[in-house]
Amino acid sequence: MFKAVVTITFKKNILDPQGSAVHKALHSLGYPEVSDVRVGKHIEVVMDVDSDEEAHKRIEEMCTKLLANPVIEDYQIDVAVVE
Amino acid sequence: MFKAVVTITFKKNILDPQGSAVHKALHSLGYPEVSDVRVGKHIEVVMDVDSDEEAHKRIEEMCTKLLANPVIEDYQIDVAVVE
Repeated sequence: MFKAVVTITFKKNILDPQGSAVHKALHSLGYPEVSDVRVGKHIEVVMDVDSDEEAHKRIEEMCTKLLANPVIEDYQIDVAVVE
Repeated sequence: MFKAVVTITFKKNILDPQGSAVHKALHSLGYPEVSDVRVGKHIEVVMDVDSDEEAHKRIEEMCTKLLANPVIEDYQIDVAVVE
């Protein structure tokens, strides 16, 4: 079994309203040292495949088809073996 | 400047409806090898503080006060130096 961790974030030039909201909230809670906040998604996918390469290939496909929107989002994939 | 990356996930015994929805969607898209999906949050906070310890202390506070709900969520913090 393999576990793929996909981290999805907005591309640098794309506005992140959720990040701005958290940024403002942190300022009003007394954290003026915060200068930027970006909010993204963290997705863990457990897969029953035979190899690391297969896991990478399949999760890459899932990202482009469903998990991420490549027009406005970047994604990073980490695959590890699990029991 | 320090960048703290906070990864927030539901605790193991907490239902994750978003994860279940993605799991079902992946099955119907032709990925029967997927056996579990969990969806969490990825938050990047850039802070203007003096030390790594200070950054850790402040982000830990932010997590308990605003970013995470410790009753149902676990969080993991990674702090790195940025320019």
